Parts: sequence; structure tokens; C-alpha cells
Amino acid sequence: MTLKVGVIGTGMIGQDHIRRLTQVLSGVQVTGVTDIDLERAASAAPAGADVFDTPQALIRSDKVDAVVICSWGPAHEEQLLDCIQVGKPVFCEKPLVTSTEAALRVMEAEVAFGRRLVQVGFMRRFDADYRRLKAVIDGGTLGLPLMYKSVHRNASVPAGLYTSDMPLNDTLVHDADISRWLLGDEIAGVEVRLPRKSRQGGELRDPHIVLLHMASGVIVDVEISVNIAYGYDIRGEASCERGIAALPNRPATVITDARGIRQAIPEDWRERFIEAYDQEFREWIVAAGQGTATGPSTWDGYAATLVADAALRAVASGQLEEIAMRDKPALYAAPVQQAA
Amino acid sequence: MTLKVGVIGTGMIGQDHIRRLTQVLSGVQVTGVTDIDLERAASAAPAGADVFDTPQALIRSDKVDAVVICSWGPAHEEQLLDCIQVGKPVFCEKPLVTSTEAALRVMEAEVAFGRRLVQVGFMRRFDADYRRLKAVIDGGTLGLPLMYKSVHRNASVPAGLYTSDMPLNDTLVHDADISRWLLGDEIAGVEVRLPRKSRQGGELRDPHIVLLHMASGVIVDVEISVNIAYGYDIRGEASCERGIAALPNRPATVITDARGIRQAIPEDWRERFIEAYDQEFREWIVAAGQGTATGPSTWDGYAATLVADAALRAVASGQLEEIAMRDKPALYAAPVQQAA
Amino acid sequence: MTLKVGVIGTGMIGQDHIRRLTQVLSGVQVTGVTDIDLERAASAAPAGADVFDTPQALIRSDKVDAVVICSWGPAHEEQLLDCIQVGKPVFCEKPLVTSTEAALRVMEAEVAFGRRLVQVGFMRRFDADYRRLKAVIDGGTLGLPLMYKSVHRNASVPAGLYTSDMPLNDTLVHDADISRWLLGDEIAGVEVRLPRKSRQGGELRDPHIVLLHMASGVIVDVEISVNIAYGYDIRGEASCERGIAALPNRPATVITDARGIRQAIPEDWRERFIEAYDQEFREWIVAAGQGTATGPSTWDGYAATLVADAALRAVASGQLEEIAMRDKPALYAAPVQQAA
Amino acid sequence: MTLKVGVIGTGMIGQDHIRRLTQVLSGVQVTGVTDIDLERAASAAPAGADVFDTPQALIRSDKVDAVVICSWGPAHEEQLLDCIQVGKPVFCEKPLVTSTEAALRVMEAEVAFGRRLVQVGFMRRFDADYRRLKAVIDGGTLGLPLMYKSVHRNASVPAGLYTSDMPLNDTLVHDADISRWLLGDEIAGVEVRLPRKSRQGGELRDPHIVLLHMASGVIVDVEISVNIAYGYDIRGEASCERGIAALPNRPATVITDARGIRQAIPEDWRERFIEAYDQEFREWIVAAGQGTATGPSTWDGYAATLVADAALRAVASGQLEEIAMRDKPALYAAPVQQAA
Repeated sequence: MTLKVGVIGTGMIGQDHIRRLTQVLSGVQVTGVTDIDLERAASAAPAGADVFDTPQALIRSDKVDAVVICSWGPAHEEQLLDCIQVGKPVFCEKPLVTSTEAALRVMEAEVAFGRRLVQVGFMRRFDADYRRLKAVIDGGTLGLPLMYKSVHRNASVPAGLYTSDMPLNDTLVHDADISRWLLGDEIAGVEVRLPRKSRQGGELRDPHIVLLHMASGVIVDVEISVNIAYGYDIRGEASCERGIAALPNRPATVITDARGIRQAIPEDWRERFIEAYDQEFREWIVAAGQGTATGPSTWDGYAATLVADAALRAVASGQLEEIAMRDKPALYAAPVQQAA
Repeated sequence: MTLKVGVIGTGMIGQDHIRRLTQVLSGVQVTGVTDIDLERAASAAPAGADVFDTPQALIRSDKVDAVVICSWGPAHEEQLLDCIQVGKPVFCEKPLVTSTEAALRVMEAEVAFGRRLVQVGFMRRFDADYRRLKAVIDGGTLGLPLMYKSVHRNASVPAGLYTSDMPLNDTLVHDADISRWLLGDEIAGVEVRLPRKSRQGGELRDPHIVLLHMASGVIVDVEISVNIAYGYDIRGEASCERGIAALPNRPATVITDARGIRQAIPEDWRERFIEAYDQEFREWIVAAGQGTATGPSTWDGYAATLVADAALRAVASGQLEEIAMRDKPALYAAPVQQAA
Repeated sequence: MTLKVGVIGTGMIGQDHIRRLTQVLSGVQVTGVTDIDLERAASAAPAGADVFDTPQALIRSDKVDAVVICSWGPAHEEQLLDCIQVGKPVFCEKPLVTSTEAALRVMEAEVAFGRRLVQVGFMRRFDADYRRLKAVIDGGTLGLPLMYKSVHRNASVPAGLYTSDMPLNDTLVHDADISRWLLGDEIAGVEVRLPRKSRQGGELRDPHIVLLHMASGVIVDVEISVNIAYGYDIRGEASCERGIAALPNRPATVITDARGIRQAIPEDWRERFIEAYDQEFREWIVAAGQGTATGPSTWDGYAATLVADAALRAVASGQLEEIAMRDKPALYAAPVQQAA
Repeated sequence: MTLKVGVIGTGMIGQDHIRRLTQVLSGVQVTGVTDIDLERAASAAPAGADVFDTPQALIRSDKVDAVVICSWGPAHEEQLLDCIQVGKPVFCEKPLVTSTEAALRVMEAEVAFGRRLVQVGFMRRFDADYRRLKAVIDGGTLGLPLMYKSVHRNASVPAGLYTSDMPLNDTLVHDADISRWLLGDEIAGVEVRLPRKSRQGGELRDPHIVLLHMASGVIVDVEISVNIAYGYDIRGEASCERGIAALPNRPATVITDARGIRQAIPEDWRERFIEAYDQEFREWIVAAGQGTATGPSTWDGYAATLVADAALRAVASGQLEEIAMRDKPALYAAPVQQAA
């Protein structure tokens, strides 16, 4: 049986997901698209897909079994609530919503509905390297994890468009989510430290050191560098009681020449996580076909809004900013969603 | 448009390809299966697939656009000729056929038909690491390749079932094919040297050193070890005029514990090449949908029979055994099939 | 010309230095030894060396051109002042002294003498890997350093004898000194964070995360784990504006077996830094032969007492503890001593 | 007690050994030098050393306990025989002598003398990486060695001066000696294969593949590339019954920048083996002080002349050239000299 999917938002990421759903993955068909720019929607629509005038019409159409939201962040809340109202599974790109209050409203609606419908686009959880790392940590042969070091380096960000709150609002959320998932733990507090500023980004505040204090006492030590010039470099290392487990280098050809023994670094997140995006949707299609969702949940989207808010407060205060989460609804009972 | 595929042979590899065609890949449907054991065929048939009494019936059925051959090697020639007769694209697992004469007959039929229909299952050409290695060699910044070292290590082979001709007949053909493809070159002669015998395999002749003398003068230096106990380890390194290019390690978690800093090795070829198999069929589906074949050709299957024969002669003679290929039909004009 | 050296303190480290000075290095002769246990001194004395009753007698003897202090920390101040009084070069094992006030008194005496006489035993500065790392940072092709990550892992410490202040008092000083030297910078403040406690060390506080705020704004992020079971693992990585420079793995045989691809880790600091100790004394002998000292200075020993004190305060306060250094005497004018 | 050493030959390598013996090593003094160019000898002579008119005078002088021969190869035989005649230990740079007959004459003289006096300059045996590799092989946990791969790459050789016999006469002998030592085995036959010629060296024959057939059946597979442009790269890997042991990369700083993750390669043999040369003389001084020699012996120098001769014959014949060694005198009883 083929899952009929409607896509809201046909910008860069929306187009990429349409390509993925039509050319890469099986068991799925894009039957509807919409966008605030209907012309763009029409040109992005694959053969056999209807162009809908509004998200509401797309969500309610009989031609659509499940929804993929790639619209502007502030539009997410209403679209998510509409999907929940009609009981359709929905994949929502980051951010889930743009405020903690909105996250709580979506959560309330989903809990009232009584079944998980929402998956948030934290693709790292679907990356084979991270899954192997989690398996080693969970395996327990190294003892309990005590620290986790997350390195998040980006070659460059667009001058002017990328502002000083974005390393914490947009970038940190990935490290925060993957840390919660790897460790099966929640974030209890956040500190931010600002090292000597890089001159690569003009006035932009960069890099950041962020300490995430987990509920268990584990400290996650994050480096965020967004203009490091050399490439997109994601590293992760767990210090456990009796050893260390770390992400490997990506498998580039080993070249030995006048520059030494060397391996290339990915240029950007598309190159680094292309297979994780495919896998993310592969698993979503299976769950959505059963009328539900697995993977990162509304609870995880809610946690992301809390950590971003606390990190911004921590820059201003220079202090540890604590995070108080509401009680966890039974719907999201697993401590943090486990790998398949 | 969905490609309707019939699968001949539903043993282990046939079942794995059925899983791949039904659960992993898009644009394709398994509509027919057959096997010498019809009961096994019935139990392997996915929903909606017919079980055919004979390969001939399957090949000729309107329900089948293209054929996947996973039967016993000696049955391949007849099945390939049948496919060519009715003009249907066909994917054939290794070996293409079991003699040089049979390879020439299939080639003659395909050339007479006038369009490529046959793809042979040399999956390494679809592996991302090999493709990146080829891109570096072809890029030319290191100068011309002068030597290529191919290491082919297998954890273990079944005692008794795996005989002393198989390292050359079944295993070497992968190294030979990937060398021809990486270097864009043909094999002109073969030498085999037998180092001290491993006691891991009882009477089995193991390991082997094979030198492939390419037409260009490049020497390919192959190590084949089939009982090396520790895992499945495939390495490749090209020595060029101004530098070296090598396959990377596979990306396993880096663990530091009382055993040192270490990374796991794949257990077998399924683990190592799982993505290459998927990609192999992804590209086959596209070409078969257009009524033709790309990837490794009948010419490549013919080359494989020649190198295996020459290697077996070289063990007996201790000398360089030369390979004389027939003139290359225009149908296979590209020196050796290039990466996409 | 051979340098005649007197060694004060013939415990484990003193004996090792006597071995080094007599069996490994050239241009040097051990002519005198002393110890609080004169019998131990006698048995440690190499052929031709006198056993002195007191440090004072050894320091003043005509048979002694230069002094090596390996006695108990609280005895260092008086012995250093004696050496300065008679104008003899002196190598002093860590700690230089046990209080900031004592460090200032030694500094005052050396400044009054007018020539450097004291070298402190920070051996990492003589390690070839650290020297290459410094050369890359100083070379400037990666831009300015912004962060430095220092990892200090020890397989185990003696239960009971090693107390919770020692990771900061004894261990951190190495990371602090090497950071000052690598970055050519002073430490302006210290923060300490305590992750989830390891159960490997019973009640011992372990591990620690320490943030050293350098005068330039660079933040040094230190992990100290003293019971990590797997070995002695020292890592260092500088994040610069346009790239990263890191210490390499130590060169152990690469073994591929059923445990994967792996390299051994050193067992302890003796194995890791054996060549650095030799080089440290090689350079000391040259300078002492010229009646002076190079390498880590009294100023560096003073800085070490300040950072250890501040770190202990930071554990108690949970806050950033600032460090105020006195004006730097011209005698120690180089920002931080450069590599040879 | 200080060993008084006379150095014959004060060209580049002789000057380097004088530096080593006077500035780096202890327990040794250079008391005499000579050279065919006495002016060069005088300028190379360290303080306190006499300049001798002839090698004979130096060898016989009471001021000289032991001799270092760094003269031209054809002069070695006579100088070695003179040393043996007066019973003085002698370190002889490669080649021991320039013909198998000469090697046999030196061996006969040493055997008649009744004690080892000669050490040949195969410095690789003193390299820490090779010693660790040998320890792993000898440890036996990987089973017996079956193949050994030796890679010998040189950035460039002087055009015109370096002729086509030199990769086999001068370069191969290192791989041959280290293979004999690592494996505790003798070479029974040699084959040479010539891959596509590099254009880096004009008319020079380069690279070479050499197969050394050891008495045990192990095959040593050697790549010699002398103009590979990128640096001096020495690799070694033993394939054993249950795993692989390989030399590590040299410990260069790991730099991540726009060229990827990379480590520098040594420029030449001086950089790669500087510590091995020091260690080689450290051990020689100890043995010479006891009136004898350890390390590579006259027997090893004899083996080297045999393998070079056989390799040159093998280029001409294209066949396996066998090596027949004389019976091994009891003086050289250890199969091949073991590491200390």
C-alpha cells in the first residue's frame, strides 16, 4: 500500500523532500503540494500531485494520508493543530514551533487525541554513525557516560542573514537533541561561555562553548563554530567510566601526496547527512502508514524550545540557567525515543 | 511507471534481492518468481507475484518487464539467451556464465540484438568508497596510476565446501573486475604466487598473491586470504606517479578502552556492501525501465571468465599466463564502464 | 666539558633522573647525592658520586656545578634559595613550591641575583608532539587560536592516597602550563564543573571539567579523568579561526584482529613522556653549563601555584575565580618561554 | 668508562655520526678521524681528536678503542680486515662490502678471530616502530606470518646520479634486511616485476615490485618507488594467520583545514630514522665497550650482497632467482639477530 503524502512549503528543503519521496523512497507518493507562493508550488509538484490553495485544504483532502510541513516556522503551530484535528500523521521540519507556549498547545492537542501523530525533523538520530555510537553507550561495557563532547562546525554562514542568536536558536538544538537521545536523559540547565571571537564572521558572535547539565549529572560540552572555513565537521565523543566512544571520520578516500596523508571533510550538512534524511523518511513512512508517528516527538520539539530559550538567557546572565519541564505525558513515556 | 520484475532462483541471494526490490527500492514491483524448487519459490513470492513453473514461462510472460537471474551458474547461459531473444533487460548474478565459450555466445546474441540488455552483478562498482577512489584516480592530480594493491580478506569459508580453486574462480573475479573498472584498463596476463599456507583452513590453499598485468603496464597486486579469522576486510590502494589514493576504513565507532584505540571490522560482505547492492539495483531499475542496461556488461562477464581461467593455469604453470581477448564489439565501446 | 650535578632526593623520580644523567645523557656526571634517608642516598649514588649529609652541603660543594631537586615539595623553597645564593643553576621537580608566597620569595631572590637559575620540571614542553603542535599554531596559517581542548586521562590513582584536591593541585597544573606555553598567554580566571561522578574511584571527586579563561579571551577546556581504567591518554586540540590542530595518536603498531583495527594506548606517564624527560635534561645541561637556565621558569612555577589555588576556590564557589598576577619581572620577559 | 672512537670517512654521513657521538650520546669520545681528503678530516675533527694520515694508522692507534667506517664502499673490505686483525670492534656503514666474495673473506677472518667485532649499519632494526611490530609478530597471538608487505617510497632521487640498478642495489637491501629480521628468516629466492614506468624520473626504471621468497615460504612483497614526489614513506604490514600487524603513521600534528583532515609525511630518511640512528649507536657503544658487537652482523651484510645480486639477475631473467647461502658459522648462531 502506498502512502499518499501532501507537502506544505516548497522552498529548498521542501523541494528536496519531494525529490526524496518521489525518486529515492518506496511505498510513498506525493499527491498534494501547497506553498504561500502557488506558482512555486505548481512548479515543484511532481506528476500526479494536486496543487492546493491552502494548507488547510491540503490537510483535509481525501487524497492526503499524511503531511510533511516545510513551511516557515511561525506557521507550524496552526498546521500541526489542523493535522491533529483530522488525525493525520505529520512530519514537521525544525523548529517544531517558535515558542514554548506553542509547543505546549500542540502537545496538549496530541495528548487529547490519544496517539502520537507528530515527528520532528531531528535527522541526526537516523544517522548510522550516531546509532552505532548509541549502541556502544547503551551496551554498557564502558560503564556509565560521564561527559559528552559535541563539536558542531560549519564552514560559513551568510553574512548579515545569520545573526548572533542563531548559533543557539538554530544550531545548538541539534547538539541538544542528539545528546538527550544518546544519553536517554533530559537537560536540567544550560551555561554559555564566549571564547575569543573569530574574525571570520565580522560582528557575529562566534564561537560558543555551551555546557548542558543533564538531569543525571552528565555534562555535555558543546563547541559551536559557524565560520570555521574548512568544512562541515560534526564530532561526538562520550567519556564513560572505563573508556571513550566517539563518532568516526566520514569515509573519504585516503590521499597521500605533497600535502601529507589526508581525508576530505564534507562541505555541508547535505553531504554529511544525506543518508540520514533518507532513513528518517523511510521510518516515518512505515509509522505514518500505521496512522501514527515514531522518532523525535512533540516532547522533543518542546525540549528544543526550552534549551534554546535557556541558552539565550545564559548568554545574557553569564550564569547557569535552569530548565523546568512540565510533567511528561504518558504518550511520550519512553525516556527519550530509542533507535530502531 | 513501475518496473515489473521476475526473479529466477529464490535461494539466499534471490530472497535478499526480493526483499530489496519490495521493501527498499522504489519504482519497481516483483510480479513473478520461479525456482527449481517451486515450493521454495511460492514461499519467497511477495504479495501479488505469480509463481511460474519454468524460467522460460517467466521470461516470456507479459507480467514481466525485466528479469533478475539468481539461479545456479550453469543455468545462466540459457536464461540469458532467452531474455535476449525476447528483448528484456536482465540482471544476472555472478558468474555471468561458467565458460569463456558460453560468454562469447551470450555476447554474440546481445550484439546481434543491437542493444545492451545484460548487467552482471559486480556490486563493488556501486560502492561509494570505490567511486570516490575512481574519481581521485581519474582526476589525474596524482599523475598516472602505476600499481594498484587490492586486499581481499574473508573471516572464514565453509570447510570442505570451499575448495582450492575458489579463491581464484569466485573471489579473485571481484578484484579483477574492480581493477579493470578503476583503471579503465584490460588484463593482459596473470601470475599467481603461493605464500606459506595458513593452518586456519586445513588443506585449503590459502592465501594467494596474484599479480594482474594490465595492458597499460600497471601491475595489480592482489592478496586473497579467505580464512583470516578477524573479519571481512577489503582494501585498495593506487600508487600513482605523485601520490597514493586508498579506500578509507569503514566508519565504525572509535572506542578507546583497555584494548586500545580501535574500530570494528565488518563481519562479512553483506555488512560491507549492503549499500552497494541497493545502489546497484537502483541504477539497474532506471536503465531497465528504458529497455536497456548500464553497469557491468557481458564484456565484463567475459573478462571475468578469462581471468579466472588464466589464474588457475598460472597456479599449475608457475608462469605468467597471458590473456587474449577477442575484438571488442562497438556495443561495449567505453573502455570500461564509467561511474555515474 | 662535563657538568657536575648534585641530586637532592633519591626517591623514585630522583633515581630515575640519576639513571638518565648517568646512562642516557652525555656531557654530565652525577658527583653528589643526598636524601633525608642517607642510606637510600648511598645506595642510589652512582660510581664516583659523594653522599652529602645535607642539601646545604651538597649545594655549596665545589664538586657540584648544578643541582637537581627531587625532594619533598615543602623543602623546595629553602633549597632553591640556597642555590640562588651561591649562583648555581638548579632543576626543580614540580611543584616549584607549595604556596604563592613562597613562589614570590624565590622569584625575588632570582631577580635580585640578576640571571635565571631555575628550571621547573614541566616536561610536556619538551615533547616532540607538543612542539610540533605549537609550531603549527604559531605558524598562523589557521588564524588565531580561539579554544584549546586538553584531555588528561589517567588509568588509575592509588585509592586513599590520591585525594579530591589532587586532580586540581597536581594534575591540572600540567594542562595549565602547557596551555600557557602553547598559546603564549596567561590565565586570567578559572571555572570548575563537576560531571556525574565515576564509580571507579570510590569517594574520589572525578572527573572534572575545568575552563581556563586566558587573558586573550581564548578558553581552554580541560577534561581531567584520573580513574578511566584504559590507560594514560593525553590529547590536545586547538580550534583556530580557519581550522584545527591536534596532537596525533602515539605511534603504536596497528593491529587488525577479531577486536577490530586498533592501536595500544600508553599505560602511564613514564611510557608517554620518556623521551620528553630526556630532552628536558638535554636542554637543561646545555643551559646549566653556561651558568643559567632556560625552559619553564620561576614565573611559570608561580603561575602554577596561582591556577591550582584558583581552581580549588572555584570548586567551592561554583563561580569564575579570577587570577591576578604581579607585574612580570624583565628577567622573564618572553611572554611564555618558546620552544627551541 | 669512555669508549674512544676513530672515524674513517668524514663525508656527509661521517660528519653526522661525529655530531651524534660528540653531542648526543654519552660514554663515548671521538679521538681520531681520517679521510682520503685530509683537509676535510681536519675540519670535521672535534676538539681533542687526532687526524690520522691513513685508516691503517687510525685503526692501530692506542688512542682508538673502536672504529666507525663511513668511507667509500670499495674501501670497506680492507679496513674491516684491519680492524679484525687488531681485534677492535667496528661499526661499518652500508654496504658492508661490494661483493659476495669480499663478504665471505671478512666473515672468514671474523670467524677465525672467534668473536663478533663487526656491526653493519642497518638502522631500521633500531627503530621503535619496527621493534614494536616485531614484538607483535613474535608474540604469536596472530598466528604465523604468511606475507609481509614492505613499502619503500622516496620523494626524489638525483637525476643522472641515481641509476637504474640502485633501487635494487642500495634501496632494496633495507627492505630485505628488515624482512629477514622481522621474520627471523632467510631469503631463498627473488623475483622482480616492473610496473608501468613513472615519468617523474626520466629514463630511470621506477617503480619496482620485488617478491622475496623466504625459506619458510613467507612471501615478502616489496614496493620500491624512488621519485614519488610527496615524501619519504616507509610502511610495513604483516599478514598473519589470524590478523594483521602494521607500522603506524609517524606522529605528526593532525591538522583539519580546507585540505581536509591530514598529517604530514617525513621529507627524507634523516627525518624518519633520526632516533633509530641514535639508538643504533647507543647499543653499539655498549657492545664495543665490551670488545664485541651485537646488532646486524657480517652474516647480514653477506645476505644483503646476495639479495642485491639476485635481484639484478631477476630483472634480466624475468624469473625467480634462487639464493644459496653458505653454511652459517656458529658465531652468527641466532637465526637472525633479535631486538634488545
